[in-house]
Amino acid sequence: MPAIEEALRPALTVDCVVFGWGEAGLRLLLIRRGRSPFKGSWALPGGFVRPDEGLASAARRELDEETGLSRLFLEQLYTFGDPGRDPRGWVVSVAYFALVRQAGLEPRAATDATRAEWFAADALPELAFDHREIVRLAVERLRAKVRYAPLGFELLPREFTLGELQRLYEGILGGPLDKRNFRRKVLGLGLLEDTGRRQEGVAHRAARLYRFDRERYRRLQRGDFAFRL
Amino acid sequence: MPAIEEALRPALTVDCVVFGWGEAGLRLLLIRRGRSPFKGSWALPGGFVRPDEGLASAARRELDEETGLSRLFLEQLYTFGDPGRDPRGWVVSVAYFALVRQAGLEPRAATDATRAEWFAADALPELAFDHREIVRLAVERLRAKVRYAPLGFELLPREFTLGELQRLYEGILGGPLDKRNFRRKVLGLGLLEDTGRRQEGVAHRAARLYRFDRERYRRLQRGDFAFRL
Repeated sequence: MPAIEEALRPALTVDCVVFGWGEAGLRLLLIRRGRSPFKGSWALPGGFVRPDEGLASAARRELDEETGLSRLFLEQLYTFGDPGRDPRGWVVSVAYFALVRQAGLEPRAATDATRAEWFAADALPELAFDHREIVRLAVERLRAKVRYAPLGFELLPREFTLGELQRLYEGILGGPLDKRNFRRKVLGLGLLEDTGRRQEGVAHRAARLYRFDRERYRRLQRGDFAFRL
Repeated sequence: MPAIEEALRPALTVDCVVFGWGEAGLRLLLIRRGRSPFKGSWALPGGFVRPDEGLASAARRELDEETGLSRLFLEQLYTFGDPGRDPRGWVVSVAYFALVRQAGLEPRAATDATRAEWFAADALPELAFDHREIVRLAVERLRAKVRYAPLGFELLPREFTLGELQRLYEGILGGPLDKRNFRRKVLGLGLLEDTGRRQEGVAHRAARLYRFDRERYRRLQRGDFAFRL
């Protein structure tokens, strides 16, 4: 092993995979690159890390600078360092991801991005660098995670119908779920509380409104060891 | 954002968290550093990444060079880049981890390591850099993972008793499990096949031998969506 003075150094970037859930389904935030390489291509928001900031801070800063979205909770996803992944040379990128309610989050492009927009997650344009691969891994992580963490509940209004919840799971898992099975399983978790009310302003057959029982979820989390297979 | 020529560059390392399961319980592979900083301290095997190799290749190479252990399956864990984590300056480290059967894996120190040894995972010496924090995160990942992936089964002989399986889970989860509950849950998964035989060479009350039903596990994996809460 060389001493640190002799070690060759890569450029280090962060890239942010931000999913938004809204009426139009699952969407992904992309920026249009204002400079080479891949000038004019769509890409994940991101950029070079500075020496005096942590990796997560760099991800939050770049996301804010390029899209105007701030204060999102970003979770580290994976670090991409295959030789040849960037035409500029040796560039290693730490990817972060977030899943947020899209409502009210209107990105505004700035700095190196000429545009910043939400795209339907199942109809993305061609992406710069290996960003398609980064997105693929983020979708995989999201699909695994939604099975054992109640992150889906953060994306719905405080009170929601089982139909809304099913559409959310279908959007994330990328395909239709059997309605009867879904209801049985989700109610079987014992994490939904029936509010006793029904949705208003619908033409007919108003559905029951449920609420997520956070206290019960916390108790389950603290509970005995359980297999989750 | 600066152009790539202007971007400041960190040194980039990999660190390997290798857990071994054996008769003595859960163990962790450490090396003793042969050079500054932290010369003489115990640390995770690892070192600088080279430009022409991927991150996983670098982790495998460093593990092999410093401990003689090769061909382990290493999974990327997390990337550590807090300012100040390395006294030499800006050093970002991509951590990898593995869980292996310790039997027959005798590390031999070489290159920058003056010693390479297995330590009991619950009685580690003081570690260099932020390696204690890296190990803490690896233990957390391991404990989460053992609940939804059958990785534990890789660590036992092909045929094993429920007592051996319980000791493995207790070793990984770091505390005793109720025997009756454990048996009910693990048999309830439907992934264990009773071989019809009992262990030999024990003084009395020979326990049943089980086998992991991989085919059934694969079928379950392909199956319908299931919550794992």
